[in-house]
Amino acid sequence: MIVHEVEPFNSEPPRAALAGQLLTPVDTFYTRNHGPIPELDPARWSLRVDGLVERPVTFSLAGLRERFAEHSVIAVLQCAGNRRADLLKVADIPGEAPWGPAATANARWTGVRLADVLRDAGLLPEATHVEFAGADLSPEVDPPEVFGGSIPRRKALAEEVLLAWAMNDEPLTPVHGAPVRVVVPGYIGARSVKWVDRITALAHSSHNFFQARTYRMLPPQADRSGGRRGEGFELGLIAVNSDVLEPDDGSRVTAGPVRVTGYAFAGGDRTIVRVDVSTDGGRSWWQADLGEQLSQWSWRHWSTTVEVPVGSVEVVVRAWDSSAAVQPESAAGAWNPKGYANNSWARITLEGVPARTTTA
Amino acid sequence: MIVHEVEPFNSEPPRAALAGQLLTPVDTFYTRNHGPIPELDPARWSLRVDGLVERPVTFSLAGLRERFAEHSVIAVLQCAGNRRADLLKVADIPGEAPWGPAATANARWTGVRLADVLRDAGLLPEATHVEFAGADLSPEVDPPEVFGGSIPRRKALAEEVLLAWAMNDEPLTPVHGAPVRVVVPGYIGARSVKWVDRITALAHSSHNFFQARTYRMLPPQADRSGGRRGEGFELGLIAVNSDVLEPDDGSRVTAGPVRVTGYAFAGGDRTIVRVDVSTDGGRSWWQADLGEQLSQWSWRHWSTTVEVPVGSVEVVVRAWDSSAAVQPESAAGAWNPKGYANNSWARITLEGVPARTTTA
Repeated sequence: MIVHEVEPFNSEPPRAALAGQLLTPVDTFYTRNHGPIPELDPARWSLRVDGLVERPVTFSLAGLRERFAEHSVIAVLQCAGNRRADLLKVADIPGEAPWGPAATANARWTGVRLADVLRDAGLLPEATHVEFAGADLSPEVDPPEVFGGSIPRRKALAEEVLLAWAMNDEPLTPVHGAPVRVVVPGYIGARSVKWVDRITALAHSSHNFFQARTYRMLPPQADRSGGRRGEGFELGLIAVNSDVLEPDDGSRVTAGPVRVTGYAFAGGDRTIVRVDVSTDGGRSWWQADLGEQLSQWSWRHWSTTVEVPVGSVEVVVRAWDSSAAVQPESAAGAWNPKGYANNSWARITLEGVPARTTTA
Repeated sequence: MIVHEVEPFNSEPPRAALAGQLLTPVDTFYTRNHGPIPELDPARWSLRVDGLVERPVTFSLAGLRERFAEHSVIAVLQCAGNRRADLLKVADIPGEAPWGPAATANARWTGVRLADVLRDAGLLPEATHVEFAGADLSPEVDPPEVFGGSIPRRKALAEEVLLAWAMNDEPLTPVHGAPVRVVVPGYIGARSVKWVDRITALAHSSHNFFQARTYRMLPPQADRSGGRRGEGFELGLIAVNSDVLEPDDGSRVTAGPVRVTGYAFAGGDRTIVRVDVSTDGGRSWWQADLGEQLSQWSWRHWSTTVEVPVGSVEVVVRAWDSSAAVQPESAAGAWNPKGYANNSWARITLEGVPARTTTA
């Protein structure tokens, strides 16, 4: 893994580690944290559900598993900072990790539906948002605050949102939120709160630092360091995006046909319907082959063959989603003071070297 | 109205007619047709529900209104060809109407929920799509075919999709689909089938000409005229978009501060969260004031003040949706052989003339 920070522990794999398998093994799945990893005893964990509900209630893990049906969803989690590294080439973004293209991954999540839990507690009509809070205390906030955030009511009642205890059919590991985390398919990873121990129905979006102050799209001219509460707009749904997985950027390859693979993803109600590849800077494009769509919430892998000349060639990639939205061209245009949500065209450079000539 | 074609009747209002009111009066609402307008007797109209349902059923209008609860939704309808005129400046698109920025509008629709009707008929689990067919026979197909199309099961069961008989609290007019039309908020207008008389649950998306052959996003190099069945990808959800409503493109205005207004819209589960305005071609931007969001499915109007110099100034506008997707810069990049789904930056030119000097 490429470790961006040890404390808190923030890591992503080399991009090639995500290639070749649609479900990402736990040990190559990126980790994004804002504080020390809580080590929780599942037998003592409990979940409080309160706020704008008819019957506030507390569940043990056993109680949760007993009361509600188990469901699984295959879904991508993607860090809002994924692909920030390309924005850093435009202008510096101090204090934020230089995430490459692998702060995203796909897994099968198993747990109970948030909607079932909310209905059981009697979600009131005036609850427009549902907030999650975790057990991890973040020293990034003064005074320290637990990590949290909210999603709109409509999403909270959608069948794909889980309170999950398993990832790829194994119990969650501590770094991924054991014993229970939220999984909000199609939303930035920050809303899939780990070590969740409180769910609160609200009449507004969360005032937690990590929703009201960060994970917000600020206009380019905004003061990054301070950030007024509520400045810019809060992130949530994920826009169409893609990147190359193999070969790595800057690879030396034998000139001739080279297989290039990658991922593409769009959040919310959209799916990937086309991936374009160009070797002339976007003047002309051809279409990559699309891999399987495992679920509405899964990424798609894609592959194509690029004719690499002797010398240098830039491979440019852009994905389209089912709303006919396409990734924007310019990383400069996507630049923002916190470096979130970069979905500009993916670009890698390959260095073609002549095939070795065998002399008899 | 600006009439693009008399037969079939295709019209949009001047852009200024959409300004100043969030609900568009019926007589300024664009019309898009592919055949003669059916004149149907409401007393004799019936709706057949069949395909992958447990209990195929036929409703009269009275039966539909009696059996199901009435609901209203405020929603935009937007033609897939809206803003095609800007693509025509890039390259010709023969045989398609040169829609300006007003092939979109917002209304309050009243009827019954499609979901209620489908549940009543017993929608089978294997039904992945729901197809609508209208009473209008289109001579654009050889042999002529009724207009139709489908939406995915998940959308068909969403509460916002209506079988509507009223528009802005008045009975539908014939040109807008009387006695009953489908309203699919957030999707291209073509899926909101008018004069609907048949709903069929399918295990695939519709094979109707207007879904399988047209209303598809073709790659730029595709042959527009023929179009193989299934070529490109089918349109459905609407991407983030915006345009100026006042002043008109090319207007002469008194140099100085000029109020500029417009609309912005994003389909599906997204809403408009920011609108940027530039007078230096997109090198720098300021944020317009956003108007009210009447519903999840409504557009937002926006307004700002532009300092117009003596001479010519281009006003550039781009909207952001809640997935942090922004309109792409280039109409050339958005160009496609059928001219659909143009959501590139909106641009108008204003000619500033000196204020008249009063001499004593």
